[in-house]
Amino acid sequence: MNKQDEWHNNPIGVFDSGVGGLTVAREIMRQLPNERIVYFGDTARVPYGSKSKETVTRFSRQIVHFLETQDVKAIVVACNTVSAYALEELEKEVDIPMIGVVKPGVRAALDATVNKKIGVICTEATMNSGIYSRYIQENDSSVKILGKACPLFVPLVEEGLWEDPVTDEIARRYLTELVDSGIDTLILGCTHYPMLRSTVRKIMGESVTLVNPAYETARELKALLADKGLESEHRPELGTELYRFYVSDAADKFQRFANSILTYGILSAKVIRIDEF
Amino acid sequence: MNKQDEWHNNPIGVFDSGVGGLTVAREIMRQLPNERIVYFGDTARVPYGSKSKETVTRFSRQIVHFLETQDVKAIVVACNTVSAYALEELEKEVDIPMIGVVKPGVRAALDATVNKKIGVICTEATMNSGIYSRYIQENDSSVKILGKACPLFVPLVEEGLWEDPVTDEIARRYLTELVDSGIDTLILGCTHYPMLRSTVRKIMGESVTLVNPAYETARELKALLADKGLESEHRPELGTELYRFYVSDAADKFQRFANSILTYGILSAKVIRIDEF
Repeated sequence: MNKQDEWHNNPIGVFDSGVGGLTVAREIMRQLPNERIVYFGDTARVPYGSKSKETVTRFSRQIVHFLETQDVKAIVVACNTVSAYALEELEKEVDIPMIGVVKPGVRAALDATVNKKIGVICTEATMNSGIYSRYIQENDSSVKILGKACPLFVPLVEEGLWEDPVTDEIARRYLTELVDSGIDTLILGCTHYPMLRSTVRKIMGESVTLVNPAYETARELKALLADKGLESEHRPELGTELYRFYVSDAADKFQRFANSILTYGILSAKVIRIDEF
Repeated sequence: MNKQDEWHNNPIGVFDSGVGGLTVAREIMRQLPNERIVYFGDTARVPYGSKSKETVTRFSRQIVHFLETQDVKAIVVACNTVSAYALEELEKEVDIPMIGVVKPGVRAALDATVNKKIGVICTEATMNSGIYSRYIQENDSSVKILGKACPLFVPLVEEGLWEDPVTDEIARRYLTELVDSGIDTLILGCTHYPMLRSTVRKIMGESVTLVNPAYETARELKALLADKGLESEHRPELGTELYRFYVSDAADKFQRFANSILTYGILSAKVIRIDEF
């Protein structure tokens, strides 16, 4: 059997600026248990959400080059900021199918909304990119979109304050205008935000549909693999390195965080020099 | 006149992981008005406070190489994390006199304490380095040191919540054990923290001396320049690029922040590719 024949058994590359993309990896593990994953978190240069398009694109290009060396059959951009700023450019540069988190989230929100008022919470960079507005308007120009950057959510999540009076207060400040606007659907437009789902739920109320792009992305990945005949044939044994984790710094901290959100324990994350790719 | 004769009129290099070091630059501007400054903020890779020693050292080495190309006569490491993790190694590698913010802060705290109980608030990286304990103990082994990492302070400062109920609440959680411990002196061991001085003052009470290493560092720089005959002879005219600012990303955001803490307006900050140095 030559390399091409076995290609569909190769791993899926998943990357993010740090730990947030683990919420996407978790969904892929749940929904596609036959697939191996190579995850990369850019912990030396996190966060991306406050950086420029040029810098985010340059960093992401290095990560894609690294994932190519791992012979991944598809790449999941598990970061809204990268999906917003760099995905379209990177797709032109490599031959591997790529999927971001923005389009799947938009599609789910358009399915969910009844009153055609959709809210998006995200990083400053994703907000500045205007990508959510653009994709939503392209699909349905009658939809009204309300975006809100929530820059303190990422540090609050990374400090573990997932349910805390301080997080409640910050969330109230960020979300009040969205509550007042009467949206019926809210996209959690940053991969860290699913960890704040219950806080956001409390403030937005039960009647607003919360869209988690991580879940939708895993669903679309499944369809993409089927469409291209790239599904893994059988469940790999644990011994064959089912999931491999790479980071650019501080593997210990990454492991602690990963072990708090994944259902199985990560034994190790390997540190690589990403700026050499 | 050859290059060597004019060397003492060259600028001082000041660097930090981002904007925090501007509090040090501000003190140098105040106390050494004759000196030109080249400032570099590593905004593409900020923050350093949660990163490893190896990564912080590698990033800092690139910045020192950049500052060498600017013919600086001295380098001020305006970042506690770099001072803690990388300064001793970098000093061996270059011929330019270097000064960090940790030792000046320690000396001022030792001068101030009466009951020999000193507190230090800082980033996780500075905390893990143990550098404050080491320097204090080397000078006076009878001093008791209480350290506390305050990881949310930097994002709160960067979001402009300098005086805010949320910042009060977070500060109360971080500082209560320091209040209870009976320290009489507290080192603000991160260059962002002087912006939270009034919040910290409110919680610690009037009887605790707050040490701002930025102020002490500018004083020691003055002494260092005098000692080495490196003082600038006269006040440069504004037209001769008195202060130059470089960043690795997002110059706009840096400018906004700089203009909020410096007493004169920054007209521009130039973006450079720091990982090429």
